[in-house]
Amino acid sequence: MDNFIFNNPTKIIFGKDTESLVGQEIKKYANKVLLHYGGGSIKKSGLYDRVMKSLKDAGVEVFELAGVQPNPRLHLVNEGIDICRKNNINFILAVGGGSSIDSAKAIAAGVPYEGNVWDFYDGTSEPKEALPVATILTIPAAGSEASHSSVITNEDGWYKRGLSNELLYPVFSILNPELTYTLPDYQTACGAADILAHIMERYFTSTQNVELTDRLCEAVYKTVVRNVPLVLKNPDDYNARAEIMWAGTVAHNNLLNTGRLGDWGSHDIEHELSGIYDIAHGAGLAIVFPAWMKYVYKRDIKRFAQYAQRIWNIDDNLFDLEDVALRGIAALENFLSSIGLPTRLSHANIDDAHLEEMADKCTASGTQTVGAVMKLNKNDVLNILKLAL
Amino acid sequence: MDNFIFNNPTKIIFGKDTESLVGQEIKKYANKVLLHYGGGSIKKSGLYDRVMKSLKDAGVEVFELAGVQPNPRLHLVNEGIDICRKNNINFILAVGGGSSIDSAKAIAAGVPYEGNVWDFYDGTSEPKEALPVATILTIPAAGSEASHSSVITNEDGWYKRGLSNELLYPVFSILNPELTYTLPDYQTACGAADILAHIMERYFTSTQNVELTDRLCEAVYKTVVRNVPLVLKNPDDYNARAEIMWAGTVAHNNLLNTGRLGDWGSHDIEHELSGIYDIAHGAGLAIVFPAWMKYVYKRDIKRFAQYAQRIWNIDDNLFDLEDVALRGIAALENFLSSIGLPTRLSHANIDDAHLEEMADKCTASGTQTVGAVMKLNKNDVLNILKLAL
Repeated sequence: MDNFIFNNPTKIIFGKDTESLVGQEIKKYANKVLLHYGGGSIKKSGLYDRVMKSLKDAGVEVFELAGVQPNPRLHLVNEGIDICRKNNINFILAVGGGSSIDSAKAIAAGVPYEGNVWDFYDGTSEPKEALPVATILTIPAAGSEASHSSVITNEDGWYKRGLSNELLYPVFSILNPELTYTLPDYQTACGAADILAHIMERYFTSTQNVELTDRLCEAVYKTVVRNVPLVLKNPDDYNARAEIMWAGTVAHNNLLNTGRLGDWGSHDIEHELSGIYDIAHGAGLAIVFPAWMKYVYKRDIKRFAQYAQRIWNIDDNLFDLEDVALRGIAALENFLSSIGLPTRLSHANIDDAHLEEMADKCTASGTQTVGAVMKLNKNDVLNILKLAL
Repeated sequence: MDNFIFNNPTKIIFGKDTESLVGQEIKKYANKVLLHYGGGSIKKSGLYDRVMKSLKDAGVEVFELAGVQPNPRLHLVNEGIDICRKNNINFILAVGGGSSIDSAKAIAAGVPYEGNVWDFYDGTSEPKEALPVATILTIPAAGSEASHSSVITNEDGWYKRGLSNELLYPVFSILNPELTYTLPDYQTACGAADILAHIMERYFTSTQNVELTDRLCEAVYKTVVRNVPLVLKNPDDYNARAEIMWAGTVAHNNLLNTGRLGDWGSHDIEHELSGIYDIAHGAGLAIVFPAWMKYVYKRDIKRFAQYAQRIWNIDDNLFDLEDVALRGIAALENFLSSIGLPTRLSHANIDDAHLEEMADKCTASGTQTVGAVMKLNKNDVLNILKLAL
């Protein structure tokens, strides 16, 4: 086990009707708030009205910035920074999924900074302070509601870059599983793939002696695997929705990587995929992860066999652990297919036209290495993408 | 799943040599500190010198209060409050196990309070502020290093009472598994029993649909069960010590009871046991818990069978879940015996002389009910104690 620091200060307010508490919670910090969200879905569902009522009842003045897109854009972030500065707003409330939250975090870091907020994302500067951010989560997936990360896309060159900083932990996040009833099946499945990927990026580590976190990873993983089919059958299953929602947060609040080094190679590859093609992050991960596993499992057959055994109950062949490991990968692929996700590029109508380009961009961006279980060069990434065809 | 709030702000600094960071961490909060600990063990081990050096190097002025006993006493707490007030000390550092930490928390709550700090423990008042507390943990057991609780004994009538308040979360806790190498086997085992009990008090719930937290409980529990025999064989096994230490914190930082109601009946009964007899809390729990389980398992045979199946791998008789449940309880008893703990009152040379008195005190103290899976009256507690003879 490696030395580590774990410190997640985000207050989680979880359960039915909890969005009604947002006004009184924000009032502890501020009298004015920038309400930041995507589009019409929170208005259609009635969530927007309930949030506005709670804020009004608490005497919190509301400024609004809608229009957050998937892969949130720098342009809108800068707009949010301007609104906050002009109106002396000192608190950002994101309502939505990971995109709205990531965008809100960028605004929060940008307001007190004299330079361009993109400096934080391209690594030329670090935030020294940030406005407090809170969230009302509507999509269990990205885990941004209790993470210290934010990913923003700069339209000028279409760079997609991430920032991690302790100042970015939301001060509180409201998680009401009822708000996820209206998610389309495909979005529920993509969210699940994202959650599973967050766990696997941590689970597949080369750090030795990490038993507790292995078992915690397995606990969260198995919970997601069991409950996703339930909500696809019955979207209003509160209990199953609640399990997935809380699992999505625990998967990415850094508990699961205490004392271990994660891999994150599949995420890096997927970023290039969704950078070129119009594909949901979760769907991209469903394609990349099984291919990555097939390419790297020989580096640590026992770990991949443990994954197969403990997650998928494939425990009948201790004399051939490679067989167990491969059947575990197949089990994941079958599961992802069964919940309606593509697991090959061809399923998403993507051919081999841009494989080389993606492999290039993935390994050329900065000096950061790709992956940890196996450090991937351009040729490795290309081979993984070919395995995913 | 019940609605819940989860907010644990304690910063965990985990790993080898991390006690050397204590000075620079405290310096962020204060220039003066009350160093609060038990007796000579931290001097013998050299920990005291390393802590003093780190504090001195950071320019932190140190005041000392040693003498914390197991079941920490109100008298010493009041002494600490006086020292802090007279010297304008605004930060308490506890070095030791749960007793030192609980005592430090009481001092922290008492300093800014005009009345008697015992008011917080007998429930006549609530803390509105508290000094920051930090800890360097030397015994994985009580979980106080990342909990919001403190248990203090008032020598005037020998009342042992607990206080839980969000102000009592330590601001940081330093966990270096190497500091636990010198623990006597019996203390290691008692600590393990305390950790397992913290998990079981949460695991045995009547709240339905708590899959994720069930699995997280099982993850922590299995890790403790596997690693305790390893450290009893080899006390300097860093990896096994590390698993137990981190497990002890996760077991009691409130993650494992998110969305569910715990039981805590066994803890209430054990408090009376260690109130009358000179027995370690963990040893008392090793005696009370199996008896409690035998008494209440019929209230939820499936849950007790799940415990047997998932923790102890007893999965061979789905046609008779009562048999599975009972064999799970027996497996726990065997495990506790195997690590050198008493599992019956007679093992600790306790006869039936005071059973009635203990049952009386347990159920008479205040209006609080005892237990949740089954609400226990005096007769129930008496029957459980008889089962433990």
